[in-house]
Amino acid sequence: MSSTAPIGAFDSGMGGMTVVKELMQQLPNEQIIYYGDTARVPYGDKSKETILTYARQIMNFLISRGVKAIIVACNTVSAVALEDLKNEFDIPVIGVVKPGARAAAEATRNNRIGVIATRATINSGIYKEFLCRTNPDIEVFQQACPLFVPLVEEGWIDDEITDMIIHRYLDGLLKNGIDSLVLGCTHYPLLRDRIQKAAGNEITLVNPAFESSREFKYLLEENGLLNENAAPGAIAHKFFVSDGAARFAEFAARILQNYTVTPDSVTVHSFD
Amino acid sequence: MSSTAPIGAFDSGMGGMTVVKELMQQLPNEQIIYYGDTARVPYGDKSKETILTYARQIMNFLISRGVKAIIVACNTVSAVALEDLKNEFDIPVIGVVKPGARAAAEATRNNRIGVIATRATINSGIYKEFLCRTNPDIEVFQQACPLFVPLVEEGWIDDEITDMIIHRYLDGLLKNGIDSLVLGCTHYPLLRDRIQKAAGNEITLVNPAFESSREFKYLLEENGLLNENAAPGAIAHKFFVSDGAARFAEFAARILQNYTVTPDSVTVHSFD
Repeated sequence: MSSTAPIGAFDSGMGGMTVVKELMQQLPNEQIIYYGDTARVPYGDKSKETILTYARQIMNFLISRGVKAIIVACNTVSAVALEDLKNEFDIPVIGVVKPGARAAAEATRNNRIGVIATRATINSGIYKEFLCRTNPDIEVFQQACPLFVPLVEEGWIDDEITDMIIHRYLDGLLKNGIDSLVLGCTHYPLLRDRIQKAAGNEITLVNPAFESSREFKYLLEENGLLNENAAPGAIAHKFFVSDGAARFAEFAARILQNYTVTPDSVTVHSFD
Repeated sequence: MSSTAPIGAFDSGMGGMTVVKELMQQLPNEQIIYYGDTARVPYGDKSKETILTYARQIMNFLISRGVKAIIVACNTVSAVALEDLKNEFDIPVIGVVKPGARAAAEATRNNRIGVIATRATINSGIYKEFLCRTNPDIEVFQQACPLFVPLVEEGWIDDEITDMIIHRYLDGLLKNGIDSLVLGCTHYPLLRDRIQKAAGNEITLVNPAFESSREFKYLLEENGLLNENAAPGAIAHKFFVSDGAARFAEFAARILQNYTVTPDSVTVHSFD
């Protein structure tokens, strides 16, 4: 595999673009091929079997497009399916959960960490498992927040309703005296300011999108796959979705301020 | 086709169970085979092509189980795909949109009607089209309410946050002086009391689930397919979902007070 081959990233939908944003900043020489399963989003309430089936289809698609390594830019898939995918596929793969957990374990001072995520991620218990494996003294307090994704997709960010919903989900967690909070779903960094406001400035928010991009860079280096040569012009990244190219382009534009995703640069590819 | 064959009903997920509830009451002799596409829910933000692909798969599945007629217990599918399905399949099919529109046209006194639904149903303009075809003097005011489905699925029914969100979506509609409001998504009848409270008692709420079950009965009669004979004991309805049998059974139990859906009576059948 050549170091000039593209890297692959995928998510259940549009949220993984917060990871793409980090990849663009931390790996400026890499061409990205992104797949968002917008026809079947959200994954957060689905079973492990279903999520694994979908993830396999997407991995095979990305590999067929010649990617040299893949970042699973989705907490739910990382939580419930990453180990199976690593065993089944012969390509370097990284998820967002382990790097996020490691960063949280480094950030905490009182060993009390909160995790917010989709129902599937919470039920998997994976953040808890990684955190306690890193340091058995750590106590983890979890909360599923199923309304955050539709709120973000509705665009209700700076909004009193969103603030009330954030408080509804967070107040119980905060009573446990946590000092760090993992944003365990790729949509959640878009609510970062409001979550920080509700949680208070003493709480450290951990963004797995940032941490995992950093670790993805190490993974490429270790495998001799890091592209050392800057492209002569702007890199033409490629975006595939299973549905709704125009809506995806609009959402992507809100996340990526320095890169233009037009509806024309998004291709619809469905597995149905 | 025999009149003792079962009837088919399907929805993008669990919401179609509000239609099943009406079918059980209005067609007590009929065995129901229900399919809920819980792995790929929601359909409300998907494109017509994707929705049509999914609906075809489900129609073929129900027909393979021997159903004599099908009710599309989903506003989104009824809105964007019903005409295609009717043309392609050789079996009596009815949706929920036309009966709902007819009932609203009968209910209004000032010819100003509101419609709330998913984004796909609203964008299809189908309620507007049917209403204006029934009576060209009718003015239709529409509002997509994407947060209602996740709110219902979260179980936040009698809740101040839900009331605020209802007001956010409805206040603009109400300023137009509507006197009737179509609950154009099968989940919305579960918010009926709160919507009535927000809208005020002068507004007539129209529930397409109720109206379409009544019309489905006529359709069966017309085609000589109505089962005239009461079953000797309780009818064993059949429920299929593409994911999450236990969660479906729990939700169904909240809707159907007089019929028990256990996880064992729900079968997972996926098209992936």
